[in-house]
Amino acid sequence: MMELISFTRGVPPEESFPNAALIDCAQRVISKNSAQVLQYGNGGGYGPLREYIANQNAVNVNQVVIGQGSLQLLDLLCRVTIKDGDPVFIEQPTYDRTLTLFKRAGANLIGFRLKDGQVDIADVERQLKKGIVPKYFYVIPDFQNPNGTVMSMETRSALAHLASKYGFLIIEDCPYRHLRYEGRDVPLLHELSPDRVILMSSFSKVISPGLRTGYMVLPAMIAEDLIKYASDTYISPSFFNQALVIDFIKQGLLKAHREYLIGLFHPRLKVMLKELKKNFSGVGDWSKPKGGYFVGLTLNPEIAPLDVEKAPDFGLALTDGRGFFLNGGERFLRLPFCALDETQIKEGLRRLASMIA
Amino acid sequence: MMELISFTRGVPPEESFPNAALIDCAQRVISKNSAQVLQYGNGGGYGPLREYIANQNAVNVNQVVIGQGSLQLLDLLCRVTIKDGDPVFIEQPTYDRTLTLFKRAGANLIGFRLKDGQVDIADVERQLKKGIVPKYFYVIPDFQNPNGTVMSMETRSALAHLASKYGFLIIEDCPYRHLRYEGRDVPLLHELSPDRVILMSSFSKVISPGLRTGYMVLPAMIAEDLIKYASDTYISPSFFNQALVIDFIKQGLLKAHREYLIGLFHPRLKVMLKELKKNFSGVGDWSKPKGGYFVGLTLNPEIAPLDVEKAPDFGLALTDGRGFFLNGGERFLRLPFCALDETQIKEGLRRLASMIA
Repeated sequence: MMELISFTRGVPPEESFPNAALIDCAQRVISKNSAQVLQYGNGGGYGPLREYIANQNAVNVNQVVIGQGSLQLLDLLCRVTIKDGDPVFIEQPTYDRTLTLFKRAGANLIGFRLKDGQVDIADVERQLKKGIVPKYFYVIPDFQNPNGTVMSMETRSALAHLASKYGFLIIEDCPYRHLRYEGRDVPLLHELSPDRVILMSSFSKVISPGLRTGYMVLPAMIAEDLIKYASDTYISPSFFNQALVIDFIKQGLLKAHREYLIGLFHPRLKVMLKELKKNFSGVGDWSKPKGGYFVGLTLNPEIAPLDVEKAPDFGLALTDGRGFFLNGGERFLRLPFCALDETQIKEGLRRLASMIA
Repeated sequence: MMELISFTRGVPPEESFPNAALIDCAQRVISKNSAQVLQYGNGGGYGPLREYIANQNAVNVNQVVIGQGSLQLLDLLCRVTIKDGDPVFIEQPTYDRTLTLFKRAGANLIGFRLKDGQVDIADVERQLKKGIVPKYFYVIPDFQNPNGTVMSMETRSALAHLASKYGFLIIEDCPYRHLRYEGRDVPLLHELSPDRVILMSSFSKVISPGLRTGYMVLPAMIAEDLIKYASDTYISPSFFNQALVIDFIKQGLLKAHREYLIGLFHPRLKVMLKELKKNFSGVGDWSKPKGGYFVGLTLNPEIAPLDVEKAPDFGLALTDGRGFFLNGGERFLRLPFCALDETQIKEGLRRLASMIA
């Protein structure tokens, strides 16, 4: 049996985990502060980590909510603020798990296709002028999931302007922002328009998903409702996990660890882009990310969609591209590269090319 | 300023946390298995802990779901299985956070008063004969929250019989079961009728709440739906936390730690019961628990209900008894004793007695 090469989920490779550092952190936070970190706590999260996130984003600490991953917080936000039929704008493609949450909340989803990673602002304004003003516009501006692209400064400015002009909130999901391998950061939407943007992110991609620590930065009144709802739902998140994260940061380890991750992932991205060029020129088009976890590959219209169910016959595991779209997506493939070594990437793309009849 | 003595929440005292052991566990689980414990995982929880819980309760591993505390799993269960208006039976008083979840889910709550810790089975059957068959009957049979009482074998048998006769499920919530200070265990409802009982419990009261590890044992089909819903909501719970719990157990530490907790809490309970007798004879009636976290105190009908808002003027923090009831409860007080030392209990009850005009 050929071992499957998996192009499915955005998981970090096991060699990326800072094992020794986390053991030290655990020893330290329990020794120094077990009375707090092993106890129940505030539904909004562990104070020192909330303060750090507040400082990083120039907001008050009561605007920060930390939960068991950022997806969980998005679920709470949906439950607290979305009523059946509320319009929500999304990029197409977008993160499949987010689509599930919005659908579950009864949102009326309206999608905007990405072209070179940009939503068509004129198209967005056409909807707004028709009187369809969304509760939220959910975007992943940095190294988008699943497409890998970055929203330009121009698009960010225009979007922030529309949010203000028409009175809606943007949800800016940016777990991959700090994994930039080349080039320079574009300002956060949250920096451009702090009152109109709910920022969400997590430490899953820069420390470990097993700590289940994600956060949201949002207007104080919504944050208050969210914390009340969180407390009613799970009392408090694990302060122990959140204490590990802030201890890791306070020890000054985050910067060096990010550099280590960049050194690990960048060569994998380069190999993936090189092999795509070798195997898919003339067959499809793909994004050229400068960071993050994913390359988005779109097969040309004349190519028959791949049957992902058959991928195991070719030694592959693939995610159905349609999951990232409200409609269409049958020629789209998300290709995560971080958890595969260079040999696996080469062989995986060779196998993928062989699936095209 | 007089320091407040808190009779509010059921939190463990900080001296009860097994700090040194948990540091060892953290070192071990990261060293041995970081690839799993620091990674995303199955929405149902960490395999080795699921297997342990399955063995303990004589069920298949696919019937076990572990989450971030058992309350969170109850929330998921409500969302997956309760439709607006579904009848749900509860004890009165009962755990206030559970009431919040059931209300939020739109359940039609029907309460049965506890007398000496027992629901009136004839009363329950009257409702059932009227055709009001609940989706669930939620009970806390062991050292009930907030009353401290234990459901008798007779009541358990009769309830299990009714569940089978009328076709409903019992939710048996038993986080305090393993904190018995005297006497012998009564069999679990789940042991009496495994197919009719959803068991829920947690490690918050026997190891640490900061690990946020609770579980449910339930029919395989419901478990499957719950796991799907959990994955859609938060991908997976923290395997790291769950690995600490099962490592703690596998090291053989749980039994000794429970004995340590019993040695810590039993004298506190004894002092509380003694001081209640001294201060409240003829003024109220109270439960005489043999374990758990709480004594339930009910003031006599001729005594005016206490204004819990005024408690701080008397150096106390109290929880409004009405939160544990659908209606009434103004003369009920939940008195948690585990997180107070003997001096605080004595002084606290003296202050409480002084609130009675």
